[in-house]
Amino acid sequence: MNMACANIDTREHRFSEADRRGVYRAIYERRDVRSSFKPDEIPDEVLARLLDAAHHAPSVGLMQPWGFIVIRDGKVRQTVYEIFDRASRAAAQIYTADRRAMYDTLKLAGILEAPVNLCVTCDHGRRKGSGLGRQTDTAVDIYSTVCAVQNLWLAARAESLGVGWVSILDLEELKTTLGIPAALTPVAYLCIGYVSQFRPQPELEEKGWESREKLSSVLHFDRWGVRDGDLQL
Amino acid sequence: MNMACANIDTREHRFSEADRRGVYRAIYERRDVRSSFKPDEIPDEVLARLLDAAHHAPSVGLMQPWGFIVIRDGKVRQTVYEIFDRASRAAAQIYTADRRAMYDTLKLAGILEAPVNLCVTCDHGRRKGSGLGRQTDTAVDIYSTVCAVQNLWLAARAESLGVGWVSILDLEELKTTLGIPAALTPVAYLCIGYVSQFRPQPELEEKGWESREKLSSVLHFDRWGVRDGDLQL
Repeated sequence: MNMACANIDTREHRFSEADRRGVYRAIYERRDVRSSFKPDEIPDEVLARLLDAAHHAPSVGLMQPWGFIVIRDGKVRQTVYEIFDRASRAAAQIYTADRRAMYDTLKLAGILEAPVNLCVTCDHGRRKGSGLGRQTDTAVDIYSTVCAVQNLWLAARAESLGVGWVSILDLEELKTTLGIPAALTPVAYLCIGYVSQFRPQPELEEKGWESREKLSSVLHFDRWGVRDGDLQL
Repeated sequence: MNMACANIDTREHRFSEADRRGVYRAIYERRDVRSSFKPDEIPDEVLARLLDAAHHAPSVGLMQPWGFIVIRDGKVRQTVYEIFDRASRAAAQIYTADRRAMYDTLKLAGILEAPVNLCVTCDHGRRKGSGLGRQTDTAVDIYSTVCAVQNLWLAARAESLGVGWVSILDLEELKTTLGIPAALTPVAYLCIGYVSQFRPQPELEEKGWESREKLSSVLHFDRWGVRDGDLQL
């Protein structure tokens, strides 16, 4: 494993311009993909690189609380699709008029189209790490697990693979379907595959569901609500 | 903003080998830094790039629930340090014998040494996104916020900046100190600065607190507990 970084010299800690550019490309060109998956199989070595990238996320106390269920079986994906479909129909009920019409046109998951689905779990009971850093905030194991998802998402972009995060799922039905032990939390359900395109902007922005906030509107200086800091954006 | 990607041609969706290498370098060479911060100031344009990278994280419904409090004021950092110090002393009590001795030697935060601290908050009440994707899992806004943290962490590595996530803090005391509204959750408290080194392995591994799990031990195929999948690692 870890082939991708076999030639990296960790003694030289500065990044070249090319290396730096790659990181920002992945961050800015990453998309939540739902509607442009191609059926092409993901080679094992590529999928292994994604999982290893996830596995190298930061984790509190080095507890590595995550688990990865690689789902390629069509029947399992079909069952998860039905869980999604029921949840999405129920979710649609809160919208009315134009908003409802728009909701109905949104493609919200690529469960059946993407050749690989991945469920990422968090095990709160894992003793690894001996509780270091976990006494004042009980959610930090979940945070570590999400960092693993984001590592995988960016590595996927670098491999020209799209990822879509499906959050419209009844989590208890999902746990039953995938046999996930009761004490674990399914944090993310991801659809992964090659794509026909990466959109220049998020699909929800393109379709008019929501627009992007300016960075300055979420920035504060030294204390919440202090907006006149001296950072030039 | 968005200077870092000004020259990126999004029509060509494949990454060059150099771009791809940059992403994996950031993932594998990122460290949780506590003890090797240098006092050098972070230029505004670099800090702005990190914040913009965070702001381009995925978010459910494009709700962008995060807030960023950039903390440079020495008095505020001193107060946060005292919150950390009390919490860490209390946390130490659960360890005995050798484990306690090792805990006492660990450097767990660079609050005073790093020139910039950053508190990343999540606003559960933000109406942006109109609730899309949030009806079946109420934690997804938190997940989006953590994705922003991980984007920033990787961008920081590409800029030769170290980041340390301090989770040993009384969150209510932190909220009071930073004036964070009651309804918001402080998800991450980060210390950011240039460093004298990036360690080749996590500090907790180097010091013998915890070792890294093999990827194969957290992998399952189609259903939890099915270990004999056909993925070559």
